[in-house]
Amino acid sequence: MFSEGGMSRRSFIERLGGVGGTALVLAGMSALGFGIEAQAYEPPALSGGTKGKKIIVLGSGVAGLTSAYELAAAGYDVTVLEARNRVGGRSYTARKGTQLTELGGEAQTCTFDAGHYINPGPWRIPYHHSGYLHYAKKFGVGVELFNNENDHSYINFERGSGPLKGKPVRKQEIAADIRGYATEMLAKQVKQGALDAEFSPGDKELFLDYLRGEGYLTPKDLKYEGVDGRGFIENPGAGLKPGPGVESKPHALTDILHSNTWRTVRSVAGWEQQRTMFQPIGGMDQLPAGFMRNMKPKVLLEHVVDKISQTPDSVTVAYTTAKGQKGAMTADYIVCTIPLSVLRGIDMQVSPTFKEAIGGVSYALVGKIGIQMKTRFWEDNHQMYGGHIYVDDPMIATISMPSTGWLGQKGVVLGYYGQGANAARVSAMTHKDRLELALAAGQKVFPEYRENAESAFSIAWHRVPFNMGGWAQWNEEGRAKYYPTLTEPDGRIYLAGEHLSYLTGWQEGGIESAWQQIEKIHKRVHAA
Amino acid sequence: MFSEGGMSRRSFIERLGGVGGTALVLAGMSALGFGIEAQAYEPPALSGGTKGKKIIVLGSGVAGLTSAYELAAAGYDVTVLEARNRVGGRSYTARKGTQLTELGGEAQTCTFDAGHYINPGPWRIPYHHSGYLHYAKKFGVGVELFNNENDHSYINFERGSGPLKGKPVRKQEIAADIRGYATEMLAKQVKQGALDAEFSPGDKELFLDYLRGEGYLTPKDLKYEGVDGRGFIENPGAGLKPGPGVESKPHALTDILHSNTWRTVRSVAGWEQQRTMFQPIGGMDQLPAGFMRNMKPKVLLEHVVDKISQTPDSVTVAYTTAKGQKGAMTADYIVCTIPLSVLRGIDMQVSPTFKEAIGGVSYALVGKIGIQMKTRFWEDNHQMYGGHIYVDDPMIATISMPSTGWLGQKGVVLGYYGQGANAARVSAMTHKDRLELALAAGQKVFPEYRENAESAFSIAWHRVPFNMGGWAQWNEEGRAKYYPTLTEPDGRIYLAGEHLSYLTGWQEGGIESAWQQIEKIHKRVHAA
Ligand SMILES: Cc1cc2nc3c(=O)[nH]c(=O)nc-3n(C[C@H](O)[C@H](O)[C@H](O)COP(=O)(O)OP(=O)(O)OC[C@H]3O[C@@H](n4cnc5c(N)ncnc54)[C@H](O)[C@@H]3O)c2cc1C
Ligand SMILES: Cc1cc2nc3c(=O)[nH]c(=O)nc-3n(C[C@H](O)[C@H](O)[C@H](O)COP(=O)(O)OP(=O)(O)OC[C@H]3O[C@@H](n4cnc5c(N)ncnc54)[C@H](O)[C@@H]3O)c2cc1C
Repeated sequence: MFSEGGMSRRSFIERLGGVGGTALVLAGMSALGFGIEAQAYEPPALSGGTKGKKIIVLGSGVAGLTSAYELAAAGYDVTVLEARNRVGGRSYTARKGTQLTELGGEAQTCTFDAGHYINPGPWRIPYHHSGYLHYAKKFGVGVELFNNENDHSYINFERGSGPLKGKPVRKQEIAADIRGYATEMLAKQVKQGALDAEFSPGDKELFLDYLRGEGYLTPKDLKYEGVDGRGFIENPGAGLKPGPGVESKPHALTDILHSNTWRTVRSVAGWEQQRTMFQPIGGMDQLPAGFMRNMKPKVLLEHVVDKISQTPDSVTVAYTTAKGQKGAMTADYIVCTIPLSVLRGIDMQVSPTFKEAIGGVSYALVGKIGIQMKTRFWEDNHQMYGGHIYVDDPMIATISMPSTGWLGQKGVVLGYYGQGANAARVSAMTHKDRLELALAAGQKVFPEYRENAESAFSIAWHRVPFNMGGWAQWNEEGRAKYYPTLTEPDGRIYLAGEHLSYLTGWQEGGIESAWQQIEKIHKRVHAA
Repeated sequence: MFSEGGMSRRSFIERLGGVGGTALVLAGMSALGFGIEAQAYEPPALSGGTKGKKIIVLGSGVAGLTSAYELAAAGYDVTVLEARNRVGGRSYTARKGTQLTELGGEAQTCTFDAGHYINPGPWRIPYHHSGYLHYAKKFGVGVELFNNENDHSYINFERGSGPLKGKPVRKQEIAADIRGYATEMLAKQVKQGALDAEFSPGDKELFLDYLRGEGYLTPKDLKYEGVDGRGFIENPGAGLKPGPGVESKPHALTDILHSNTWRTVRSVAGWEQQRTMFQPIGGMDQLPAGFMRNMKPKVLLEHVVDKISQTPDSVTVAYTTAKGQKGAMTADYIVCTIPLSVLRGIDMQVSPTFKEAIGGVSYALVGKIGIQMKTRFWEDNHQMYGGHIYVDDPMIATISMPSTGWLGQKGVVLGYYGQGANAARVSAMTHKDRLELALAAGQKVFPEYRENAESAFSIAWHRVPFNMGGWAQWNEEGRAKYYPTLTEPDGRIYLAGEHLSYLTGWQEGGIESAWQQIEKIHKRVHAA
């Protein structure tokens, strides 16, 4: 039961009742009873006053902004301390003039044309991130679709063997063919009676019908001979030529198997990914900007928190400003959204158990590079509109085409999105070498790649000050041993952020975690 | 070979050579040689002057507008005659104030709120419609993604049996489960050696790996036990509750089979459909509007063509204006884009063979209804962002949620999209009864449906003046016997339109057919 933050199943049904009458309640019930919940978590209602309490929020990523916004809306006296010269934390967009110096790295200034950008951190939102969408709706932050699975995009795998090795093939060819062959094989077995034990009466014929449809098998012989959806040699068109076009022929099963391209084919997208997702129009920094347009609390930028101490009655935060000035601030509670990767280096008056727990999680090594291209050759010449190109060099992993600026002149491509040890290797390179790595990989898929590249912006999150990592990566032991500790306050200190959720690596985790923690504070204020 | 209009394979390679150097040519070659062409058809180059020729274009749908635009750009003296009081033909958008009276039907005026609309005809564009996208790019008509396959949308099938009958289930549940079971069954057979004959050496293990991945099978036992991508009973979130959430359990295979829901699961989308498509921002009438902003030719609205006659030297078109005035106009050639369903009723001086061919095709019976909803309950309560709901009442077929206006207040839902005899039955109803039909169907899926409906606009294309049908539906006999005749001119009369393509039912067919026909005229002018 979701009882502490967000919305319990109970309150979801109550809300339906309140808004839409009985029919709606029944629908909610049936959705619940039936398996998949039609579920939207919402901010906690912090009603009943604040007893004049003062709260400091540390960090202004989505977790900090959510905490500050909701607490201030409830009437609390809220101040936000943020180390950087901007709000948003990882929810961030690099555009003309954006500066970044990684720890121990060269200074970098983004030189994209006006209107072009890359989201170096978060870039896509699934439909079930109801907290994110709630604030986007509330603040009028426009969203647009993000094409997260483009069947017409290329796979370019080099580590297999056979004729498909190192050749860009369209994802749709592979999906159609391997599923075609698989359904054909299965249909043969089913027909022969090999699986009769699996079927209830009447099921067998229905199952054969399913296979026929799924794999586009020939109606009678149940053979796979290709399908229009895998693409044409020459597209159908007008008149007599091209007229019906020229159909393409399936790849051989053995060629597909040895190419490894089948690794991209899954029955459904994973929970965290959908084929079609969302992105804020204009860049990921637009939601933080939406918060700021609607925020009452004071947000103090370039205030780096050095130390957190507490007494039974209050909590004190010491900071250093950009100009090197030291200061301190005292409040009743703090909500600390500083990533654990950074927090573990901050002097903090908490129990040893709590302190140990803060150190009990590792952070993702992850890097991205945005490359501005002077034409949208992937659209003009390859009819690829958004989506990811899959390559099997793990330093590159995917090359992604923008899902914005359709049919325009230029565009910013995501040149790599490597993780783990491979990201570490890339991050040890100069920006120039990172670009070279990306260009060499892209050139293997698009002959137009290198000659179109105009400028680039690269980031290695594990080397970024005030983040020191992409996102929290809890292992099973950490979840059991440390995570529960951190979800409860230590004295007057409450932690929030993506790291305190099962949605790590997602903004939604930061938002929902903030909701839970501020609700706890509010209950405590009222219990006192 | 695409030799008459659009672009031949040869000229495609030449173009690559011209733009991007040798590398690009090689890429084009490799794409061609490899199976799936990276193909973009383009307008013909009508160079070398016009010898002062005059051309009349009949109709201002995309075929007429394309013809007129390109011919005028080449220097021809072009006039367009259009029966309606607007351009665009089927490329049309209903919004506040749009009026429609079907043949023998009641007058209807659209009363949607400002900014809301339905595209009663064309509404989505696949990536390979390069002609459409060419003009959108050229005229700066913005496009946005159209979510054509939303895994989180509902299937609500009532004609099967068992516990899933008449229950809205998410598409992703069905796809995950049936593919899970199918891969499990196949893996079992493969493991037992039943299919060894199908595999080349080394293939079997790779194929098992594929099945494991595709179906999310347990690594060792190769069992399907569900997958996160099918949805949760309670979504994962922050803290300890919901924390990891509550996983959902697969439906029983027999229940899926008897529900018929598996009919929605196909290995890949068909050629004409992709999971993610495009739509013009603001409505389908935006491309015609883009043409008009850039058109030189005179477009005469409310000029209904009654008669077409010709001599060896000229062609004459007689028309009646809205005010009942008769007139006539003579030119060197005409491009006639009037749908064959209408043209067969027009007095036309052509050969008997040509005349017979015009009557040799039937037109789709098809209807739609747009319903303005006062809240976006499908987004707010059901987390369904765009996509289609599949129902098995063929009078409804699909209910589609808008892929625009995300997170806004209101939205226009497509309440049905029936075809054939079922569309005929619906079209015999009053607008009020059509709406009632749609509301009753929608209410079965969304308890909020009826109470949210504010206003509606319905259309039955076979009853629409100047169209008399949705699109040409050639059968095999017609394609062989009549279609070739119509692709060639009769004297000075050239036909163009979606009906003269293998892309019937798509604007692209109209555009590419126009390209072919105007190129023929231009060659004739120069041959003379
Ligand atoms: C490469 C990458 C891709 C991602 N993709 C997605 C995605 O597609 N979708 C998605 O939703 N999420 C994605 N995420 C995850 C998402 O970015 C995070 O989950 C979310 O932004 C975390 O928000 P937060 O508020 O918890 O932390 P942060 O945004 O990191 O905020 C912490 C704040 O604390 C500040 N701070 C740090 N130290 C101090 C200090 N000493 N004093 C004062 N302030 C301090 C920081 O400057 C920062 O503003 C991605 C992340 C990365 C790195
Ligand atoms: C319900 C529906 C859904 C569709 N979905 C899609 C889709 O998703 N995507 C897509 O690309 N396409 C779709 N189409 C198909 C698309 O609408 C057509 O293929 C295309 O618009 C045809 O263009 P056209 O120029 O050939 O004909 P039209 O647009 O019909 O143009 C013919 C013109 O001739 C005029 N005319 C008729 N009679 C006379 C006369 N006597 N005198 C003068 N003028 C006359 C008409 O008023 C009209 O303007 C759909 C069509 C329908 C009906």
